[in-house]
Amino acid sequence: MNRKCSIASLTAFALAAPLSAQEADKPEYPSPNAIVETAPASEWVAIAPSDLLFMDLAADAEGNPRRVVIQLMPEPFSQGWIRNIRKLAAARWWDGTSINRVQDNYVVQWGDATEQKALPDGLETVPESEYTITNLAASKAKTRSVLEHSANKPADWMDWGQQDYDVDSYADASWWSNGWPIAFRDSRAWPIHCYGAVGVGRNYSPDTGSGAELYTVIGHAPRHLDRNIAVVGRVIEGIEYLSSLPRGKGGLGFYEDASKRVPITSIRLASALPTADQPRFEYLSTEGETFAKYADARANRRDPFFIVPAGGADICNIPVPVRRVSGE
Amino acid sequence: MNRKCSIASLTAFALAAPLSAQEADKPEYPSPNAIVETAPASEWVAIAPSDLLFMDLAADAEGNPRRVVIQLMPEPFSQGWIRNIRKLAAARWWDGTSINRVQDNYVVQWGDATEQKALPDGLETVPESEYTITNLAASKAKTRSVLEHSANKPADWMDWGQQDYDVDSYADASWWSNGWPIAFRDSRAWPIHCYGAVGVGRNYSPDTGSGAELYTVIGHAPRHLDRNIAVVGRVIEGIEYLSSLPRGKGGLGFYEDASKRVPITSIRLASALPTADQPRFEYLSTEGETFAKYADARANRRDPFFIVPAGGADICNIPVPVRRVSGE
Repeated sequence: MNRKCSIASLTAFALAAPLSAQEADKPEYPSPNAIVETAPASEWVAIAPSDLLFMDLAADAEGNPRRVVIQLMPEPFSQGWIRNIRKLAAARWWDGTSINRVQDNYVVQWGDATEQKALPDGLETVPESEYTITNLAASKAKTRSVLEHSANKPADWMDWGQQDYDVDSYADASWWSNGWPIAFRDSRAWPIHCYGAVGVGRNYSPDTGSGAELYTVIGHAPRHLDRNIAVVGRVIEGIEYLSSLPRGKGGLGFYEDASKRVPITSIRLASALPTADQPRFEYLSTEGETFAKYADARANRRDPFFIVPAGGADICNIPVPVRRVSGE
Repeated sequence: MNRKCSIASLTAFALAAPLSAQEADKPEYPSPNAIVETAPASEWVAIAPSDLLFMDLAADAEGNPRRVVIQLMPEPFSQGWIRNIRKLAAARWWDGTSINRVQDNYVVQWGDATEQKALPDGLETVPESEYTITNLAASKAKTRSVLEHSANKPADWMDWGQQDYDVDSYADASWWSNGWPIAFRDSRAWPIHCYGAVGVGRNYSPDTGSGAELYTVIGHAPRHLDRNIAVVGRVIEGIEYLSSLPRGKGGLGFYEDASKRVPITSIRLASALPTADQPRFEYLSTEGETFAKYADARANRRDPFFIVPAGGADICNIPVPVRRVSGE
């Protein structure tokens, strides 16, 4: 095997491929990542600092800092829990807590391992009815219309409407709205548990969790959790600091040995940091032309490595592009 | 949050939940794992030692051994590559090679980082036509029939035929055959890239790879690789030794720093080991009653934690149960 060639070819289906290698390929059809690079500034949407949560873990064994950046869900989803999360961050409630559970192909979970830490006053008790919302149909129709009528389609673009893009075992359809993957059924809509999704741990129904106990998905999308747990955000940078942690040996991947827990030094909203310390992030509009082309390319790989385009994709295999635009 | 209760409730959707906790729940409907525990011995199928590959990595920083167990695909799938893999293992070709690539939410890849190691004589060049096969329709029909007419259905079992179990964005349908998830379209069938699937790295078409360069999936199922790369097996034990490795900082997750590569001390077929050193594994028949109940429970969680059954599942979210029956 010629690894160099192998790398170049693998580049064609990398999720985060170096452009240089792609340009070297000079593919007739650009890769999904190359398509994203063509997006005009107008299609990149700034993420509000009040929707960015920074989770700083203790430095790793080599002394390297570990910062995980979470984007909170925008309205109209899960806002009760998200108001609680903002209060918990403002109260510095998570500082000194830890990552307590790492279950392979499932979740990483963090919070207060002592179970003794008092919650701040004024947290909301959010009803289960908030797991889903109504009235997103219009948004879906608008999004789909843009995708179906996107300009500059490659000659062999199959008609989007005939694609299996929104075939979904867990809903009547799934689509994107304002940068987030959303499922639809019976005039209700809900956010989807894809890789990197952040959710709210809870006890038995009717408890819905406060937001103090959070987890993120580090495996195949556990869609059976949709409508059963609140999805409140997604990790947009640094998920490798969570997904590469040693798996817990206890039940459900909890660390039996307390010394294995990973200390959380702080969780803060970007808006609570000095402006100079606020890195800025943007996501690619899911209502724009470039996303339509990117999604089509993810579902119909025509770049050089591929020989058979899939003819569709499940929504969790078309991650919404997010980029850091300032700060280190 | 009452962590204890949280753990108990989380047990209800754990992939590998301690039975004791589940029994403590006394659910009206047992969890998928509790259903698997009820399978009669006749539904557990022994995995032949010639289909088991042991990959031993160098001990970890704490001196703990790291063994990854891979089950090779049975006929009729990918047999040309699998014959090559058996030859490579018999020639001890991988001994002294390394894990060279760890890309988050994608793959871990191993082989000869030097690109200089000569391959053994007699390896086959397998044509792309071998990515798919025909004549599995009968098997699918049989499997489905068993599932649809399974006895002892809970009263509220929705008719299997109306379930979205085989709604699949990547194929006309997906189902299980002899313990493996398989996709079907246009009278062709092919193995599916689910979490833990092992595939054959290759260069540009028409190269199909020899089997010397292998990878395993450590993220959301990359189904766009189906029919484009050979799937030759799946990790059935020890995937955490791969999925928790530090992510590579180079393009595609390759380790830029050679010292980060993880040495592979040996890869052997179980059948090449002394009988006493051969742990035995079994998988749950996907043509049996218990699997039908398990799959239904995975797709319609009724155990105590859940409030809304999904009404379906994608095939990669219904992993085939595998158990170790002897050896440590």
